[in-house]
Amino acid sequence: MTRAYNFSAGPATLPEPVLRQAQAEMLDWNGVGASIVELSHRGAEFMGVAAQAEADLRTLLSVPDDYAVLFLAGGATTQQALLALNFAAPGQTVDYVVTGHWGKTAIRQVRPYVDVHVAADGEPGGFRDIPPRQDWSLSADAAYVHITANETIHGVEFRDTPDVGTVPLFADFSSSIASAPLDVSRYGLIYAGAQKNLGPVGVSVVIVRRELLERAGQPRADIFNYASHAARDSMLNTPPTWNWYLLGLTVKWMLEQGGVEEFARRNAAKAALVYDAIDGSGGFYRNEVAVPVRSRMNIPFFLPDETLTTRFVAESKAAGLLALKGHKAVGGLRASLYNAMPVAGAQALVGFMRDFQQRHG
Amino acid sequence: MTRAYNFSAGPATLPEPVLRQAQAEMLDWNGVGASIVELSHRGAEFMGVAAQAEADLRTLLSVPDDYAVLFLAGGATTQQALLALNFAAPGQTVDYVVTGHWGKTAIRQVRPYVDVHVAADGEPGGFRDIPPRQDWSLSADAAYVHITANETIHGVEFRDTPDVGTVPLFADFSSSIASAPLDVSRYGLIYAGAQKNLGPVGVSVVIVRRELLERAGQPRADIFNYASHAARDSMLNTPPTWNWYLLGLTVKWMLEQGGVEEFARRNAAKAALVYDAIDGSGGFYRNEVAVPVRSRMNIPFFLPDETLTTRFVAESKAAGLLALKGHKAVGGLRASLYNAMPVAGAQALVGFMRDFQQRHG
Repeated sequence: MTRAYNFSAGPATLPEPVLRQAQAEMLDWNGVGASIVELSHRGAEFMGVAAQAEADLRTLLSVPDDYAVLFLAGGATTQQALLALNFAAPGQTVDYVVTGHWGKTAIRQVRPYVDVHVAADGEPGGFRDIPPRQDWSLSADAAYVHITANETIHGVEFRDTPDVGTVPLFADFSSSIASAPLDVSRYGLIYAGAQKNLGPVGVSVVIVRRELLERAGQPRADIFNYASHAARDSMLNTPPTWNWYLLGLTVKWMLEQGGVEEFARRNAAKAALVYDAIDGSGGFYRNEVAVPVRSRMNIPFFLPDETLTTRFVAESKAAGLLALKGHKAVGGLRASLYNAMPVAGAQALVGFMRDFQQRHG
Repeated sequence: MTRAYNFSAGPATLPEPVLRQAQAEMLDWNGVGASIVELSHRGAEFMGVAAQAEADLRTLLSVPDDYAVLFLAGGATTQQALLALNFAAPGQTVDYVVTGHWGKTAIRQVRPYVDVHVAADGEPGGFRDIPPRQDWSLSADAAYVHITANETIHGVEFRDTPDVGTVPLFADFSSSIASAPLDVSRYGLIYAGAQKNLGPVGVSVVIVRRELLERAGQPRADIFNYASHAARDSMLNTPPTWNWYLLGLTVKWMLEQGGVEEFARRNAAKAALVYDAIDGSGGFYRNEVAVPVRSRMNIPFFLPDETLTTRFVAESKAAGLLALKGHKAVGGLRASLYNAMPVAGAQALVGFMRDFQQRHG
């Protein structure tokens, strides 16, 4: 068995020790005679796993006590719809700052329920920069302001938390949660699909200031009610237990590695390696995102033509560097460098990039 | 490592060969250098896994071509809410036949959206029988009729498909899908959380007659739209890939074992063993469900007092028979005998029951 370096944007590479532990426990978790995936979510065994995962995630992200942490089935897209249902009155204004593909997706999910106001839009600039804060047209009476902390396709990332005054700031942190220190108290709500930095696909995390759960929102099924999930410790119905378990192992691994400060250091090092290789290629490789908002997690880059791009994808895969093809919305290439990607993976990538340029440049 | 017999109602026991394969492939699926849980849902590898799982499930359940098969995140409760959103106009009448706890849950999810008419209710009879079809008060203009094919807590099961005329019949088959042959064409829609007979928690299956997907339903986010999921082969957003993969392994195992006819035979044998042990105990063990509607999947049973019940749970666990405690809504004991529970497991249980009675009866 040879493990490749997997640059997939998500589902994405996981820490090998996490996979090894899941493998070892697959038929018999902790000596109980059954796999964790076979145990009742209401039994003492899984309840312990779930509680430990929450405690560790609170430690990792320094989540204040007045925030609830929910572990929910479905991905970030489902949470995007639930934001409007839970926190905005029917037809109420909500402000969205659009800095890439996923900001647009977030809007699509809430249009049936609320009055969407695009407070700022990076699309006229090709999503190569984040519109400066002073140019945003925020609504005084918005239910919330929504941003996408990191855009996986366009490779644009908020490096700082914008000040939006007293309206709660909601943020999609699917692709950058736990990649660096974060002041949760600046946000009303943070949500993230787990399949990038937090572990496996199939579970999402919602971190929400508890007082916001008292909002009436809109008529909705109980299963769409964050307050109901919070009141039942995310056991309102059968949660995705195995996914939650693997998330817990991943979070524990991140704590053992040194926490978000250590990953911020590694992520900066990995991103610097790849951006330097791009910027130092004399134009052979291109990334057009404004330097101050370049994503540390997802680096889209482009070659002079389609033939070279196809060749790069094929040759890199043969060299054990997986999933470097860009998203179809923008084409080209993309390297995702989540927490579980070691610095050695980024080094292997830039080594390959230099070699590829020498052969084809 | 010793594998116990796990009688959990769900998440539930899985076939050991399925767990062994998942274990073997955990770090490197099919030689690609990464786990299946790390691969993009849009890559050729996972697309192949997903398509094979659908093809195998269609074979296992003899799903007609004019039915879509969806693989969705979340459990059955989420689907319960989506039924109203997708198939009923705002405030339209929907008919529900309530034969246990989960029928009531299904109603709770749709009350915000539709006019719920309870066409029949087994609760006055303590959910010990299914109200006879001729006593149901169906609405002529209902959007659909909903039944719960098998009630895991009350142990009541429809042994035949009721005739409800031209209104589409919707059924929660979470706990009995694939347990016996089924004529899918009698239903407008069948849904099931996978964590009982189809494999792991965290993914649900919806089998729906395609023409129903043309209904307008109610204003809703795209992520709540079954037609959108169908149009994108359940890849509208990132699906729970690992759960889908494990479902595929489980379905493949069921086909290899002989399909639903073989499981119907095994399930009848297992249920007969346990019901005979109860009925032949001279009243030491009790199950009060009317014989014609006794569930083959979940057998709730009761001892003379609480002290014995507590002792039974502790002693059976020590004997390697897990999760026999009844649901808190009804108390007592419960044995779940899903497809992955071998006949030997039911034999071990009745052996223990007879021994326990000799010692404490």
